[in-house]
Amino acid sequence: MASNTTVIEEGTDFTPEFDSNGLIPAIAQDARTGQILMVAYMNRAALDLTIQTGYATYFSRSRRKLWKKGQESGHFQKVEQILVDCDQDCLILKVAVEAGQCHTGYQSCFYRTLAKGSSK
Amino acid sequence: MASNTTVIEEGTDFTPEFDSNGLIPAIAQDARTGQILMVAYMNRAALDLTIQTGYATYFSRSRRKLWKKGQESGHFQKVEQILVDCDQDCLILKVAVEAGQCHTGYQSCFYRTLAKGSSK
Repeated sequence: MASNTTVIEEGTDFTPEFDSNGLIPAIAQDARTGQILMVAYMNRAALDLTIQTGYATYFSRSRRKLWKKGQESGHFQKVEQILVDCDQDCLILKVAVEAGQCHTGYQSCFYRTLAKGSSK
Repeated sequence: MASNTTVIEEGTDFTPEFDSNGLIPAIAQDARTGQILMVAYMNRAALDLTIQTGYATYFSRSRRKLWKKGQESGHFQKVEQILVDCDQDCLILKVAVEAGQCHTGYQSCFYRTLAKGSSK
């Protein structure tokens, strides 16, 4: 009989592992360029809405509510593909996007690079 | 006086935000292809070792110990660049890699795609 690990890692069933807060991290990656745009979290409802609507919906940990990306900024994320990792505790959303995806105005939330060898 | 949020989001100081378990998620991305290889977690010591050695070191949540990626498999991750996001609670490591990066043998841990519109 297949072990639980085998089922999770090699099976075709999607059984996302939500953490103790009921959340799973989701990486939004530009489907065209490969640039990582942001990382946010989903609860079950956010994931279901994302799948049903085809647009990324997250759960805001600070506001404690569902948050359709773009609902205020207009910068929606059209989901082209969802990938899940080996232990099913992280997702990638490959998304089609237009303007700046970070609330700061940058295209990606990852707009800063550490100086080589520095921890500052 | 600049607000704390302004300092975190717009400052040049690297002040990584570790969660209540002392961890920060780190996305390993192939520096050459842009493929997302895996997501793992770092504590302060893992991050410091990564910066000091130039090779990715994580903190294994299951084994509760530092884990230099590749120490068993030989599939090390040479860190070319580290990026941090707007609120400094997530990192990207742009890495140079050779063989399969996932313990399952795939090049990426994200080797499965959800069927369109399906939550299975």
